[in-house]
Amino acid sequence: MSTVTVYSTKNCPYCRMAKAFLDKQGVPYTAIDVGADAAAAQKMIEISGQRGVPVIVVGDEVIVGFDSERLNELFGTPVERELYDVIIVGAGPAGLTAGVYCARKLLKTLIVSENIGGQALESWAIENYMGFRMITGEDLMKKFEEQARTLDLRLELVGVKSVTQAADGIFEVTSAPGAVMRGKSLILAQGKQPKMPGVPGEEKYLGRGLSICATCDGPLYKGKKVAVVGGGNSAVQTAIELAGIASSVSLIARSTIKADPVYVKKLDGIKNITVHLHSQIAEMAGETYLDRITVKSEGKPDQSFGVSAVFVEIGWMPNTGLLDGFVATNDKGEIVVDADCHTNRPGVFAAGDVSSVRSKQIIIAAGEGAKAALEAYEYVTKKE
Amino acid sequence: MSTVTVYSTKNCPYCRMAKAFLDKQGVPYTAIDVGADAAAAQKMIEISGQRGVPVIVVGDEVIVGFDSERLNELFGTPVERELYDVIIVGAGPAGLTAGVYCARKLLKTLIVSENIGGQALESWAIENYMGFRMITGEDLMKKFEEQARTLDLRLELVGVKSVTQAADGIFEVTSAPGAVMRGKSLILAQGKQPKMPGVPGEEKYLGRGLSICATCDGPLYKGKKVAVVGGGNSAVQTAIELAGIASSVSLIARSTIKADPVYVKKLDGIKNITVHLHSQIAEMAGETYLDRITVKSEGKPDQSFGVSAVFVEIGWMPNTGLLDGFVATNDKGEIVVDADCHTNRPGVFAAGDVSSVRSKQIIIAAGEGAKAALEAYEYVTKKE
Repeated sequence: MSTVTVYSTKNCPYCRMAKAFLDKQGVPYTAIDVGADAAAAQKMIEISGQRGVPVIVVGDEVIVGFDSERLNELFGTPVERELYDVIIVGAGPAGLTAGVYCARKLLKTLIVSENIGGQALESWAIENYMGFRMITGEDLMKKFEEQARTLDLRLELVGVKSVTQAADGIFEVTSAPGAVMRGKSLILAQGKQPKMPGVPGEEKYLGRGLSICATCDGPLYKGKKVAVVGGGNSAVQTAIELAGIASSVSLIARSTIKADPVYVKKLDGIKNITVHLHSQIAEMAGETYLDRITVKSEGKPDQSFGVSAVFVEIGWMPNTGLLDGFVATNDKGEIVVDADCHTNRPGVFAAGDVSSVRSKQIIIAAGEGAKAALEAYEYVTKKE
Repeated sequence: MSTVTVYSTKNCPYCRMAKAFLDKQGVPYTAIDVGADAAAAQKMIEISGQRGVPVIVVGDEVIVGFDSERLNELFGTPVERELYDVIIVGAGPAGLTAGVYCARKLLKTLIVSENIGGQALESWAIENYMGFRMITGEDLMKKFEEQARTLDLRLELVGVKSVTQAADGIFEVTSAPGAVMRGKSLILAQGKQPKMPGVPGEEKYLGRGLSICATCDGPLYKGKKVAVVGGGNSAVQTAIELAGIASSVSLIARSTIKADPVYVKKLDGIKNITVHLHSQIAEMAGETYLDRITVKSEGKPDQSFGVSAVFVEIGWMPNTGLLDGFVATNDKGEIVVDADCHTNRPGVFAAGDVSSVRSKQIIIAAGEGAKAALEAYEYVTKKE
């Protein structure tokens, strides 16, 4: 077997997932903390051309990020072709809660997800999940995951390509590598993904200074100048946290700051954050790595200044591309649900950020996951 | 001022609330743990004619239970006649979560409730609140309460008599003693209350052997024979817990056992529980205190046997009596909500067990409370 090296940072959840995947498959590997080891960090950047973790080196192959599909091809075991009572797509707060509730009802339960924890992993500090005055997204998701793992359910770490319903009424979930998983009911909880700002060249700099995971990549920019794009809670929280790591933070908001008043108050007290209102990044520059941006502000001349990183926090798109009309969605692409998580297709339920429920919060997603599970239980039990 | 004595048991949440109320009002009192002190327990029973805690003695007056109305009359401060951004009725999982979310949005927030924790207090062991593998209802509600108390909100421990809307659009919440509290928006989260079995004489024995709070009164029946009425999760959990305290437990279910399979499995392994299916209590007997019941079972002769207590766990009714047509309710009396907790009256939201959401779970109530708060925030902000 080829030697495997995992370059990671201490708090990066995708690094943890990559290692957990390798552990589960019994693949031996060397782990290197590039947050602590500057020489190794330099080597990782040379090998991968990336300033983002994780980077996984398998023999001569360099895998950038937690690429669960490629890792499954290299090391995965084939998915059983069993009939499950319920298949849950997604393992964020909604999917994991649904898993716990389904397993406690003794349903034969399969969770299929590319990652564990979903977008919740990227929260720095959560103060509004009831039961914890303050917890990081990663710690909370670890607790969710542990709670799920105490129960009898199967968790497949793989992406989903499509969901369909066969002539016999059974739902079929096809993984990215092409495995077909069959279930009597279906809970869609695949969450949302970050929107990109649409600046020319953003593909070039993604992983080379442009980051969509401040929790992951923030520690790589100690003492550097960075920028955050966005004006909502996530953007402001990210700016506040990065202000403690980076030398300065430019917060670039398209209109005004729309964060919770408590965050706005905090923001006002931090000296190394500069807020650019009614502003957008017009240009990104740098030979291999991002090193300069040009900011366009309403009624002001353009400003060009050096930054080592831009963190994007401008919102999310629901992960509903895989559905292809399978269930009804609204104008935002979210799955339309009623107050009990029913979609318009019997036997299919939706929960969490992928659904049309307006507020996107961990405690709400968890509650919706529980609802969806109890409705799926009733659907499966009544059919029998 | 008269001397005040509080007779309580260690784990009784209503006892804790009574003490918290007296502490808040600066009323000195003597607390006696009747779980530890058998002589005091006997004295309490003599004074009050009650075998249930708390019993509060104020001078010559004996107050049975946590009678917040009477305690407010004796010791309360008058409610301010302020205009709140939001008034939340109820302080269970939904109301407390709504309070946290509203206060974080810097809304001027008032929570009005007879108690803190609601029905969640009566759960012995919660294994499906995400983040905690196992926690008692009381401990979890303490955490919710502490989280709320770190924030700037007002909590009034008093019952609510009615809610109305004035001609200027302001909502008016009238407390049981007659104080009027005014709010720009309203979140109804007043939960549900236990149903009674409808056995002749149940009024006579309530607090004299008939109990609706096993968590409170269970410890008083160490080594005695007891019965539990019901066949759902709560009844089975209560029977399992009481089996560790009482000498024997008769579980009396109207039809079959409808609890989660995990509880049914546990139940099967406990020797001092006898299950009576398709059964009802036809009669309760005993001079001052309940000491005997007659059980009617389908296709069997009636059975009469001695018990010191009957714990009722047969379900709940929503606390919607105070509404009097204020918002639309369904055939169960629950407030009809959409997926975002809107009622049919603009500015009024509902969350938790009082709403038409089918599944009644702490994590669901908490999620709904967060939703209702964020919708109330938007309602109030848009009005300004």
